[in-house]
Amino acid sequence: MKEIKPYVTLVGAGPGDPELITLKGIKAIQNADVILYDALVNEELLELADENCTKIYVGKRAEQLSTSQEQINQLLVDYALTHGHVVRLKGGDPFVFGRGGEEIDYVRQFNIPTAVVPGLSSSISLTGLQQIPLTYRGISESFWVITGATKAGFLSEDLYKAVNTNATVVVLMGYAKLKEIIDLYTDNGKGELPIALIQNGSLPNEKIVLGRVENILEKAQASAIGVPAIIVLGEVVAKHLEFEQIKEEIQVLEF
Amino acid sequence: MKEIKPYVTLVGAGPGDPELITLKGIKAIQNADVILYDALVNEELLELADENCTKIYVGKRAEQLSTSQEQINQLLVDYALTHGHVVRLKGGDPFVFGRGGEEIDYVRQFNIPTAVVPGLSSSISLTGLQQIPLTYRGISESFWVITGATKAGFLSEDLYKAVNTNATVVVLMGYAKLKEIIDLYTDNGKGELPIALIQNGSLPNEKIVLGRVENILEKAQASAIGVPAIIVLGEVVAKHLEFEQIKEEIQVLEF
Repeated sequence: MKEIKPYVTLVGAGPGDPELITLKGIKAIQNADVILYDALVNEELLELADENCTKIYVGKRAEQLSTSQEQINQLLVDYALTHGHVVRLKGGDPFVFGRGGEEIDYVRQFNIPTAVVPGLSSSISLTGLQQIPLTYRGISESFWVITGATKAGFLSEDLYKAVNTNATVVVLMGYAKLKEIIDLYTDNGKGELPIALIQNGSLPNEKIVLGRVENILEKAQASAIGVPAIIVLGEVVAKHLEFEQIKEEIQVLEF
Repeated sequence: MKEIKPYVTLVGAGPGDPELITLKGIKAIQNADVILYDALVNEELLELADENCTKIYVGKRAEQLSTSQEQINQLLVDYALTHGHVVRLKGGDPFVFGRGGEEIDYVRQFNIPTAVVPGLSSSISLTGLQQIPLTYRGISESFWVITGATKAGFLSEDLYKAVNTNATVVVLMGYAKLKEIIDLYTDNGKGELPIALIQNGSLPNEKIVLGRVENILEKAQASAIGVPAIIVLGEVVAKHLEFEQIKEEIQVLEF
């Protein structure tokens, strides 16, 4: 009988395209006895697992209650003790709003060893795929990634500070609060700031809407864009190829 | 004779460990006619290239002048026109202080198609490997990644703003300015803030130093840590396993 060695590895699956996982992430999946995976994880990745691997979906489904965080924490421990190597496969990176920190904390209480395989966060990768540089000499010396879904349900205090900096701002899980974010930027004199909305980034049904804070709501409605989408705010958005083309058209019209 | 199809792909090689590149990154390398690579790229990755691929080092060497950005831009165009598919292989992610935006801009002027394969930025991946969560419910709702090496040579203005937020702050290429950063945080009443320095992250010679703003310089000197290192500032650093153990020891002493 195989000896059980409890072990939990948090693995970042990346933004959606199954080729955007790391080699180390694939090896972890191949060596998993159990995989607990989220809604945003591409199920093609599960095919890489051993045929005896137990795969458990713990994400949200349209009309069902999702597995609670407490349940997930307990499942990680229970499966590690009974099956051995548990891979917790999460969309993006496990520590970028993934509650991976809470999972690690819980597992450690049982003296079960843990490891983390980082993944491509949508904040960096979806902008990159769209060739929007998060930083650019002379334009942006930093980028700030902020959750749109705080525990209390309000806009994050950090966003109120971010609006008055030159940082490129990426809001994750914030699409439901787009109107509030637009109002915040408008109230702070940033109506002309370039903004991008990226839905289903890295997947075949990817959509992007480019504009300025003052006209993005209208454009988003016209494009019927929806969740899951990330919001990117900053002058660097104007570096997107199509944004440049919009600028050129405007210049042609002006002369 | 093979038809030349000029094409430039910026590829993020990740933080150093060759297993921390994506599958898409590997495919790009395998399909490259020419690879221009940086100092921080793990050379093991070059072995994945076709035997006819031309590999050109454009990073800094200890006693030689590095290839200038203008030269790199021109090499990308020249090789694309004469050889076809050029892969620009960069450490971390191409758009996180990698000057990838400038390279894309230059190449586009020649109507050469471009693509980007994002990579794991050290900001997210080195913290993740050390199990320091960048965000954590109730502790940090955001993270802010700032360059320590501005064009003008001063600390970034963004850092002066970041010190007064609850964002987890990651400073890249800032180790030479550690003293200035410490002073800034101390002057703003953040002497007790947890801080981590990670050198050679993801590589066999990785080193980490954990402490608080008020004692980190001393600890860094004692550990003989040096460049290249990233700086992580925020309450989440206290989630590092060894930081917890330090806390427990202190508590034991107190009672």
